[in-house]
Amino acid sequence: MGWLRLVGEMDRFIVDGLRSVVENAHVVTDRAQMQSYLTDETAAAVRPKPASDLVLVRPANTQQVSAVLQLANKHNIAVFPRGGGTGLVGGAIPTQDGIILSLERLNGIEIDKENMMAIAEAGATLEKLTKTANEVGLFFPAHPGDENAQIGGLVATNAGGSRAVRYGVMRNQVKALEIVTPVGNILNLGRRLHKNNVGYDLTQLIIGSEGTLAVITKVTLRLYPKFGATATIILPFTNRNDAMSTVQKILKDAGTPLAMEYVERDLLEMTAKHLGEKWPVTIGDQYLIIIGAEASRDQLLPQSVRIREICQQNGGLEPFYVESQRDQDKILKIRSSIYLALKNETVDILDIAVPVSELVNVVDSVEEIAKRDKLFLPVFGHAADGNLHIHIMKREGDTADYVEALRNEIYRIAIDAGGVITGEHGIGKIRTAKLQTSLTKEEIALMTAIKRIFDPNNVLNPGTKIPV
Amino acid sequence: MGWLRLVGEMDRFIVDGLRSVVENAHVVTDRAQMQSYLTDETAAAVRPKPASDLVLVRPANTQQVSAVLQLANKHNIAVFPRGGGTGLVGGAIPTQDGIILSLERLNGIEIDKENMMAIAEAGATLEKLTKTANEVGLFFPAHPGDENAQIGGLVATNAGGSRAVRYGVMRNQVKALEIVTPVGNILNLGRRLHKNNVGYDLTQLIIGSEGTLAVITKVTLRLYPKFGATATIILPFTNRNDAMSTVQKILKDAGTPLAMEYVERDLLEMTAKHLGEKWPVTIGDQYLIIIGAEASRDQLLPQSVRIREICQQNGGLEPFYVESQRDQDKILKIRSSIYLALKNETVDILDIAVPVSELVNVVDSVEEIAKRDKLFLPVFGHAADGNLHIHIMKREGDTADYVEALRNEIYRIAIDAGGVITGEHGIGKIRTAKLQTSLTKEEIALMTAIKRIFDPNNVLNPGTKIPV
Repeated sequence: MGWLRLVGEMDRFIVDGLRSVVENAHVVTDRAQMQSYLTDETAAAVRPKPASDLVLVRPANTQQVSAVLQLANKHNIAVFPRGGGTGLVGGAIPTQDGIILSLERLNGIEIDKENMMAIAEAGATLEKLTKTANEVGLFFPAHPGDENAQIGGLVATNAGGSRAVRYGVMRNQVKALEIVTPVGNILNLGRRLHKNNVGYDLTQLIIGSEGTLAVITKVTLRLYPKFGATATIILPFTNRNDAMSTVQKILKDAGTPLAMEYVERDLLEMTAKHLGEKWPVTIGDQYLIIIGAEASRDQLLPQSVRIREICQQNGGLEPFYVESQRDQDKILKIRSSIYLALKNETVDILDIAVPVSELVNVVDSVEEIAKRDKLFLPVFGHAADGNLHIHIMKREGDTADYVEALRNEIYRIAIDAGGVITGEHGIGKIRTAKLQTSLTKEEIALMTAIKRIFDPNNVLNPGTKIPV
Repeated sequence: MGWLRLVGEMDRFIVDGLRSVVENAHVVTDRAQMQSYLTDETAAAVRPKPASDLVLVRPANTQQVSAVLQLANKHNIAVFPRGGGTGLVGGAIPTQDGIILSLERLNGIEIDKENMMAIAEAGATLEKLTKTANEVGLFFPAHPGDENAQIGGLVATNAGGSRAVRYGVMRNQVKALEIVTPVGNILNLGRRLHKNNVGYDLTQLIIGSEGTLAVITKVTLRLYPKFGATATIILPFTNRNDAMSTVQKILKDAGTPLAMEYVERDLLEMTAKHLGEKWPVTIGDQYLIIIGAEASRDQLLPQSVRIREICQQNGGLEPFYVESQRDQDKILKIRSSIYLALKNETVDILDIAVPVSELVNVVDSVEEIAKRDKLFLPVFGHAADGNLHIHIMKREGDTADYVEALRNEIYRIAIDAGGVITGEHGIGKIRTAKLQTSLTKEEIALMTAIKRIFDPNNVLNPGTKIPV
């Protein structure tokens, strides 16, 4: 039918309804104009297909979001809330005919300097938040790789990233939420407070619910003082066991760094090459990349010295210490680009989390599988959080059944180690069938009952997070 | 009827059922033997009365807890879970005929040193947890005043305390829970992990639900490295505005101390006298009591110097700096005993939380009420959290209606300042009628619906937290 797809009768009724609520220019029915809203960063091989009969709506404010949801709920139309589209599990992909609800126009950010909080609308990007906070001498810690992520999405997915070591994940930063429930109620949960024991904590329930319980329209976030000094320290090791046991020792005896990543040499060299750069460390095969950040250089140096000592007491080689911002950025860029370097050849990115004490056994087990099946199975991740990303790579002849068996085998390793199948990427639309690996049927039943309370007609992001 | 109260027919049936599950010695029907289980720390004037027809049961393990709940649920008998009884809002008081479920025999603690976590049974005391962690060089931060509090109760009430400044409240420490739902299902929520995005976060929903959604039987808690050096710094001020604005400046420019309390001179002197001690500072009328805690004295000193500078730049007098543990303990003891010094003359302790920027206005407004009504209305609290405790004191001739009007007036001040009626003490049984001051009817409806999912027959701690 080409891009000028005819809209069906029902659609026309809904589209007219949407146009009575949101300005014409922001109710889009032309498929060509909504291409970038139909997908996300999920690997192509496992990415869900968008539905064919979709309307894109870009409300200007919370009242319009409420009106859209009331309309959708009344007529039983699916609504897919959408942030930056940086998710890796298809959570934002509109897989049923219905409405794509983009929050991009709600993008204001207000900084409350006195209380060190940011009040960000859902569609503001992480980049804008980071920058706006920075301009007034404050710091927002949560940092998943892609700064195009939007605040609403970060909260909906309880995003993590490398800086969770010291500051925790999004869940730990959110003090209040403005949400719109699927039936259209606008609720203000929480306050600009550090302590609040009124009622059940609905704020925490919404965080990480992946857009299935409510549309997040505004978020109050805790900010922190900016650092006076930072340094990146690369600890090189010649065996994995030494590297992993060093993680625990640093956490116990050297204060809490901002980030502590585990990456192996081959992956860093490959990524550097992909970027046209050179990985600067010439010794060691396994690396801990540590970011230290303190109020002043005087406070940072003793920590760095202690980290060096611990490294060398645990079989590590001479650490590579970098203070200049330019050199730190270069290292961080290589670390952050692993995903990009692998992306085109990736079939699926797994995101297991295990207790820190189990890291070495888990990575060893994954390596054994790689050897057994003669696979390139790159593993890296947030060592201090026990959160590992494992890329299943394309290989000619590997069937979908083979990939599924491999995925299940790795999940089994994580679960047997006391872990779960997702530390930060979430369940989205591609892992709902795996929920039962980490949750009992009683837990899933409680969750579906909660979903029904918020969303009796199951209009909001259906097929995501839990089986409803 | 004296203490040998006759048990009714229904009771006898339930008691027999309980005795088939829990050892005879731990199914208590003798009122005299259950006296200490009938009350908590709530001020006598507002404390709910315990029901007359009660059975105390002390299960030995989670399976027995499950069996007790199954029995209760089947026969529609109210169950009142009980920890250390240190609550201030009647949350643990058994106000309907039914079963008192004491968790005291589930009191084991296991430390996972490698992952820096404690796995504590619900009935273990905070004192035991603190000591056990300490013995292996680790630190548990949450610290409400009374160390007889039990871990299950701390989680159920999302306890706070003075050290929330740096580490947050209980909510931020809990990684996993073993719970028994009111229908008797044993669920293991969460894992020994820092990142976990599987399903809705039921762990967070249970935290702070005040024993109305499930009985907590076991808790996995994050521990931290022990400090190498601590100091207590008392900043004296001659006006409240300077003291309060200093709170924000320290948080912004001097790192995050372990605790930062606001107390006025008269209250400290009165408490010291009550203890037979002497408040050691002779200058100033308003005080910030700050506890600094760092890995080493080298790291602590620059922070202390910076705090002194900020104090003096903001109109403060010369700080009183204490490093010896004995002197620090003495100051902390006086601060922690304010509650005890006031206790016998207290009608009700309010526990408002407001944005930090509003503290000075809120305390000024409370002082105006005290002047207007010629009242002694002591105010003190966790300044960095915006959490204030206000004692309404006994006075001859004050009616219950007067106290209620006063309470409402103070609540109104907090709410108008963007705050809530409880920062850490919770709602319990004495504040449910006030929920509507801080929550909309839509929010309360969602909460009651969630309660019904977990507890269809409303057997668990009825009359607590939310109106069901």
